[in-house]
Amino acid sequence: MNDDLKALIRTIPDFPKPGIQFRDITTLLLSPTGLATTIERMAAAVDGPVDLVAGVEARGFLFAAALAVPLNAGVLLIRKDGKLPGATIAEDYALEYGQDRIAIHADACAPGARVLLVDDLIATGGTARAAVRLLRKAGASVTQAQFVVDLPDLGGADLLRGEGLSVSSLVAFPGH
Amino acid sequence: MNDDLKALIRTIPDFPKPGIQFRDITTLLLSPTGLATTIERMAAAVDGPVDLVAGVEARGFLFAAALAVPLNAGVLLIRKDGKLPGATIAEDYALEYGQDRIAIHADACAPGARVLLVDDLIATGGTARAAVRLLRKAGASVTQAQFVVDLPDLGGADLLRGEGLSVSSLVAFPGH
Repeated sequence: MNDDLKALIRTIPDFPKPGIQFRDITTLLLSPTGLATTIERMAAAVDGPVDLVAGVEARGFLFAAALAVPLNAGVLLIRKDGKLPGATIAEDYALEYGQDRIAIHADACAPGARVLLVDDLIATGGTARAAVRLLRKAGASVTQAQFVVDLPDLGGADLLRGEGLSVSSLVAFPGH
Repeated sequence: MNDDLKALIRTIPDFPKPGIQFRDITTLLLSPTGLATTIERMAAAVDGPVDLVAGVEARGFLFAAALAVPLNAGVLLIRKDGKLPGATIAEDYALEYGQDRIAIHADACAPGARVLLVDDLIATGGTARAAVRLLRKAGASVTQAQFVVDLPDLGGADLLRGEGLSVSSLVAFPGH
């Protein structure tokens, strides 16, 4: 399934460091048909009405915005801490070495707003789980997440399911 | 014109530093109608067929991707140097203090590809001019640029016109 899209994703060996096979969605984005089909299939997988599509900086912005328009939803930006101009709330999460912090505007969503989380790729799920917790801290109802690419052996989708989300993706690279 | 969209853009004083009035498009993005109307009016202002919409990291990604779908175009990513996984070409540009560098994948566009440059905001135009030069270095035909917000007193749109582009924006904040 979705082999047409998978064929448009390029693999770059040893990026950003030796041993990592980087799944590069920039080649999918360059294809008008690839982009349109990606957004169409993501939209078809959405379950029920959505008020906001939340995208994670920076590649997540691409799919969140393109998907929000056909869903008649708005876009909520999840950014690295310090990038948003207004008052924010933030959430820390662990990286392989050290930690990082993401933020949203404190007034970005009304209590109970139905938010769909979107990113280009899910690996270990650390960023996505922090995003879900952050959105819930802001009062959002977050019940579904969508990714273009899943690296299932890294367990991120299962981690999000453990947070009560339904999770879908278009293309999987087992063994990553 | 476009007063409905202008009303959705929030002004944050003294961000990122004292004396700057930051025009914050995150509030426009949160509005489903605001987002849809923005994309519709940008699409209507496009002159002739476009192969690729080039978006500048990170906020430019939002409008580039959302606009590419109705234009039946692909998206070309212009990123900070070091972020793209494949072989790149880069362009330096001056900042108020020091300089910065943007990059695109060296194989991102075919010679003669018709590329529309998009970003959320044009101020002095330094980044946008570097983007145009970079795209042309890659062989692209870059004849038009669109922005959601223009700060006309900073002269960026005129700078791009000096490079031979037609430039349009939806909302202007004179006096910035």
